[in-house]
Amino acid sequence: MTFDKITLDHGSGGKVAHALTADLLLPRFGNPTLTPLNDGAVLTLGGQRLAFSTDTFTVDPLFFPGGDIGELAVNGTVNDVAMCGARPLYLSMGLIIEEGFARRDLERILDSMQRAVGAAGVDVVTGDTKVVPRGAADKLFINTSGVGVIPAGISVGAQGARPGDSILISGTMADHGMTILTQREGLSFEGDLRSDTAALNHLVERMLAVCPDIHVLRDPTRGGVGTTLNEIAQQSQTGIRLREADLPVRPAVAGACELLGFDPLYVANEGKLLAFVPADAADAVLRAMQADINGRDASVIGTVVDDHPGRVYMKTRIGGERIVDMLTGEQLPRIC
Amino acid sequence: MTFDKITLDHGSGGKVAHALTADLLLPRFGNPTLTPLNDGAVLTLGGQRLAFSTDTFTVDPLFFPGGDIGELAVNGTVNDVAMCGARPLYLSMGLIIEEGFARRDLERILDSMQRAVGAAGVDVVTGDTKVVPRGAADKLFINTSGVGVIPAGISVGAQGARPGDSILISGTMADHGMTILTQREGLSFEGDLRSDTAALNHLVERMLAVCPDIHVLRDPTRGGVGTTLNEIAQQSQTGIRLREADLPVRPAVAGACELLGFDPLYVANEGKLLAFVPADAADAVLRAMQADINGRDASVIGTVVDDHPGRVYMKTRIGGERIVDMLTGEQLPRIC
Repeated sequence: MTFDKITLDHGSGGKVAHALTADLLLPRFGNPTLTPLNDGAVLTLGGQRLAFSTDTFTVDPLFFPGGDIGELAVNGTVNDVAMCGARPLYLSMGLIIEEGFARRDLERILDSMQRAVGAAGVDVVTGDTKVVPRGAADKLFINTSGVGVIPAGISVGAQGARPGDSILISGTMADHGMTILTQREGLSFEGDLRSDTAALNHLVERMLAVCPDIHVLRDPTRGGVGTTLNEIAQQSQTGIRLREADLPVRPAVAGACELLGFDPLYVANEGKLLAFVPADAADAVLRAMQADINGRDASVIGTVVDDHPGRVYMKTRIGGERIVDMLTGEQLPRIC
Repeated sequence: MTFDKITLDHGSGGKVAHALTADLLLPRFGNPTLTPLNDGAVLTLGGQRLAFSTDTFTVDPLFFPGGDIGELAVNGTVNDVAMCGARPLYLSMGLIIEEGFARRDLERILDSMQRAVGAAGVDVVTGDTKVVPRGAADKLFINTSGVGVIPAGISVGAQGARPGDSILISGTMADHGMTILTQREGLSFEGDLRSDTAALNHLVERMLAVCPDIHVLRDPTRGGVGTTLNEIAQQSQTGIRLREADLPVRPAVAGACELLGFDPLYVANEGKLLAFVPADAADAVLRAMQADINGRDASVIGTVVDDHPGRVYMKTRIGGERIVDMLTGEQLPRIC
């Protein structure tokens, strides 16, 4: 895809963003650690495997039902590290603050980061604060990077899906994205829309305890479940078959999606994960997930198949079958 | 210091920025790793000591004589990791791009990051790209975080200064800051002003090879040499005595400082380090520094004393003595 200027689509997590990575980043920086493009990098240092990940948060508004940018920034990187099968331990915190930002709001966000750090059981160990003149940034952006340790015997990655695997989701789809969107548009819906932002590392620990052989873990953030499943299908060169009737969406979220013309398969989640597990372990993993507060609505949504490698198919409610493609452009800028 | 709104001073690296850290950050996130506030955190994982550091770059303009934001972002974090006595190995890269940013400029910056990564001998292993709508950020901000390994037997840190130590600087002061400032103001000076941005990890390796017992390593970026020496004096609870005549400043930089009313002691450097070494090792370390391209103008600028703990004194050219205080507010926003 040729282009002269960066567009919002380049930050979408969808096809256009992937093209940016493939065209501009990998040719310059590609190496065996970067190129798999998992949620984080797996490093081996002194015989120990570490996960290392980074994420920048530009969400607008800063405060929303269910959380704020601070909590999102902690949980987002904790989750990216956990999706490598690692136990997250240490975070960095880089703030870009617009001149004139209210101390009261900053304190509220830092309080929320403190609570999130405590809940996840990690430490902030290094940081950086930049203040830019009024108008040079919109209020506050936060970068977090994280380091964690991958226990021996664990090997998860987007290349790991195998035909026969069961595909599990830890709860309902699209809660975060539709919450931000409706806040931004000033819409209100019956039933409460709340971000699902949560740290999933304790959930992952429970899951790995019952099944160390989990093949893939991913949190479907930007681009949603549909885009993430496409990435996994492509990287594992397997097919994926979903059942539309099994895709969990809260009624209020489904209503908002329908009214505003969004497909929940492509809307961001911030406290959900997808797990690909051997079929004979699916029940045990599902029970372990349902015992965790962040997995109580966990369910099986599909299976890995050996036909149509690289593609995601969905059996629709009316009995047909359709391709679930990767998100192309940007549905919702500044969603996280 | 009470305040209601964040000001540019809070991003200065000076006293006001320190107060922000002390009042808002340490009470919430303080832990034995964060609290020493070195350039990076020292972590022990599996018996191995790692350095972990983060920095966000918002420099304006993006391109300047001697470098650009991309090179600065790589070198800045490589240096912060190296100042922990570590060998930097892995970087993350988090981009915030303003919608409409020219692909040509992005490619030029990524090219420069690629060269910097190659020169430093590190790998970019994980990244994140966010695009925000026009007006929500000024062109491009880059966060880098870095991980490195600290060899056995090395222990450097801002608490390590001891009376009798010699204080070495790797070259001239204030080149980066005065280059950015004069670019921004559209001024031109006789003799070329160029940023000193450089990766200092190879220089540090040479220094540690001849003296594993280096006590302190710091790169005097925001706040300059004056502020950094004050931080070390306070954290080590020792006095520092400088000789004004020994402070190296390029004539063109000195001229720009004089004309514009800046003290080179407080202007940012991006390719210089300060080292505190036992007096009997000073000559050997100095020779090792001078053998490196980034230390060829290295010199001794002062000594650590046991009187006036926490203070920096300077013997002036006319024979008097004055206190060198920490920078209070912001001299130059968006300098790095």
